[in-house]
Amino acid sequence: MTQMNPYYSELQGSYLFSEIAKRRTKFVQENPNAEIISLGIGDVTRGLPEAIVKAMHAAVDELAQPETFRGYGPEQGYDFLIQAIIENDYKARGIDIQSNEVFLSDGSKCDVGNIQEIFSQDSIVAVQDPVYPVYVDTNVMAGRSGKFNSETNRYENIEYLDCTAENNFKPSLPKRKVDIIYLCYPNNPTGMTLSKAELKKWVDYAKENNCIILYDSAYEAFITESDVPRSIYEIEGAKEVAIEFRSFSKTAGFTGVRCAYTVVPRELKGFDKDGKELLVNDLWNRRHTTKFNGVSYVTQRGAAAVYSPEGKEQIKALVDFYMTNARIIRDGLASIGIEVFGGVNAPYIWLKTPNGMDSWAFFDKLLSEANIVGTPGVGFGQSGQGYFRLTAFGTRENTEKAVERIRNMSL
Amino acid sequence: MTQMNPYYSELQGSYLFSEIAKRRTKFVQENPNAEIISLGIGDVTRGLPEAIVKAMHAAVDELAQPETFRGYGPEQGYDFLIQAIIENDYKARGIDIQSNEVFLSDGSKCDVGNIQEIFSQDSIVAVQDPVYPVYVDTNVMAGRSGKFNSETNRYENIEYLDCTAENNFKPSLPKRKVDIIYLCYPNNPTGMTLSKAELKKWVDYAKENNCIILYDSAYEAFITESDVPRSIYEIEGAKEVAIEFRSFSKTAGFTGVRCAYTVVPRELKGFDKDGKELLVNDLWNRRHTTKFNGVSYVTQRGAAAVYSPEGKEQIKALVDFYMTNARIIRDGLASIGIEVFGGVNAPYIWLKTPNGMDSWAFFDKLLSEANIVGTPGVGFGQSGQGYFRLTAFGTRENTEKAVERIRNMSL
Repeated sequence: MTQMNPYYSELQGSYLFSEIAKRRTKFVQENPNAEIISLGIGDVTRGLPEAIVKAMHAAVDELAQPETFRGYGPEQGYDFLIQAIIENDYKARGIDIQSNEVFLSDGSKCDVGNIQEIFSQDSIVAVQDPVYPVYVDTNVMAGRSGKFNSETNRYENIEYLDCTAENNFKPSLPKRKVDIIYLCYPNNPTGMTLSKAELKKWVDYAKENNCIILYDSAYEAFITESDVPRSIYEIEGAKEVAIEFRSFSKTAGFTGVRCAYTVVPRELKGFDKDGKELLVNDLWNRRHTTKFNGVSYVTQRGAAAVYSPEGKEQIKALVDFYMTNARIIRDGLASIGIEVFGGVNAPYIWLKTPNGMDSWAFFDKLLSEANIVGTPGVGFGQSGQGYFRLTAFGTRENTEKAVERIRNMSL
Repeated sequence: MTQMNPYYSELQGSYLFSEIAKRRTKFVQENPNAEIISLGIGDVTRGLPEAIVKAMHAAVDELAQPETFRGYGPEQGYDFLIQAIIENDYKARGIDIQSNEVFLSDGSKCDVGNIQEIFSQDSIVAVQDPVYPVYVDTNVMAGRSGKFNSETNRYENIEYLDCTAENNFKPSLPKRKVDIIYLCYPNNPTGMTLSKAELKKWVDYAKENNCIILYDSAYEAFITESDVPRSIYEIEGAKEVAIEFRSFSKTAGFTGVRCAYTVVPRELKGFDKDGKELLVNDLWNRRHTTKFNGVSYVTQRGAAAVYSPEGKEQIKALVDFYMTNARIIRDGLASIGIEVFGGVNAPYIWLKTPNGMDSWAFFDKLLSEANIVGTPGVGFGQSGQGYFRLTAFGTRENTEKAVERIRNMSL
């Protein structure tokens, strides 16, 4: 008998988005003429910027001719893209990153999902709550979570760091010794950020307590405020404690094109079971080259165009477009007394449901009365109960229409 | 202290290709005028077929406009490609595969590397020897290999199935109880195949002994002989015991474009620790949707064009081109008395080194006397000692020149 990984049975169903789809489908069947607007899923809707389109066409043409054809590239990514990343995302902000510290991949979901493999199975993991489910689920699969407690709605062996309006969505430091801390800023789902001073607390904590921060910075491009760090490496000493994940998905509209990167500094050390120091970079490099075969050449050329003068301008226009949507939602909701968070440095608006409704009750009300689909906060964790996420990725017309409909609801 | 995965320290260095590069570099430094021909790495060299180029351009244009833009696709792949695969690769050969049994990915290396995650850690793994190193290394990382024995050059807890000229590269059934068997046909590196009757023995064995076959069929497109199964599912009952891996990499020149797929039949069962049956498909689906975010849309459109009438014709021409190279190498080497294997249903020629030289000695001789880089067989495992791999992926001119040079060597 071939036995399967026993930890998979500890996974909870991917309840959130299937339940949303189920309720939406039921509503549409019963109300076939309702014009539904989705501000639920975090997917972009604008076309790819022209500079990227041009670069991708050129790359396809290169692949068509034996003289310019490229087969297997380096698993870590082509140097033309790695250098552009280092120059623009780091050096321009005074951060020194070497080319062997950058690993290109086909998505941050893959990287944040795979990274846990290089740590020992008995590592204690801390996550923010609410949280992007991939951090938790991949650790469940690896056997780090313990049992799921259906009363607390949490895994017994995971340390949850509550983020609610009470602490302005800035979690307290872990109460017990942990080994790995997932932080996501700008945060999905809350859209909130940390200042440099606040992030420094985490870096200092990680140093003092010998733990590693996995810093998911997929929404960095949406930061508008100047005191908000764009990279954890803006904090002194962070290269000794943090891995950073970045993505082209939302920045450049790459959700269907697939490109991201992960920075693993050579200063970052882990330990083997005898207490001997190991370079985390070496382990990730081994993992990446053994189980991954590089990002599509066409995609990498498209990503490099993000850093061209025209690319930068077009990306800025794209981000501005979505952030204007965010402002429209924020202002519209605030004007009728709804408490809103996020939406300033992130394309997510996190709102406190009116009158203390629970997240799913508000979902149903929004769907039935305004024909809008959003995401119940409790789907991201117990601390999301009583909150709700709207995204700024819709068209302008739909975003304005959605806000108008909410303003006309009886709340 | 954050402890790292302890099993990574059991990995042996990725010795093979770095050692090849080192010896090549040294030779070039000492012989700057030597015109080196590489028949070493298994990478294609021709341009992408026209039908694919056209489809990729069209897909890039779709992504440029909001009206036709596509963001996140299904993690398992778009239906247009899954249906084309089912129709052409399976239904056309009388095999019934459902759409929820096909999982698209960005490469077979990733899939054959990741698949072991869904099995329990104490599964006993059998591999052919010589073998594609990813099968072994990913199980080492997961803690299934036991210690490496530097005298036998093997891991203590892996079952190695010898493939040598003595058994015509057809391994015996495992001598002890195993749970997972990796089979690769057409084989990399030997280029050899099994007949339907021979493959049936393995399917029957897996059924009788409750084990699962991981069938890597990445080189299926190169099969020319009629009795050679193109899919393990041509064997009755195989859907109950086998997962199949296929790739567009060599078939369509996608090594830099990145597309592959894995078939996990719903008939395939594993067991939980209490002996309860589980659908392997459910576990893989959960793994795939949690840690992967779909193949680039542009790539998927390119892959679908492989199945268009023009695409099929152009792919055939591409495969024929490489297989003509294979014949040139086979015939040329055989004509001077070198014992050659493979190259009939696979783009790899596996040769017995003349006069019983060891693999690396022959590498050095070939490099210094003929300025040709190939791959020492022992790099794929202990049973590859005394063998050598040449690939058919070069240009016609280089292939012919290489053969001529070998014919002129004193062997």
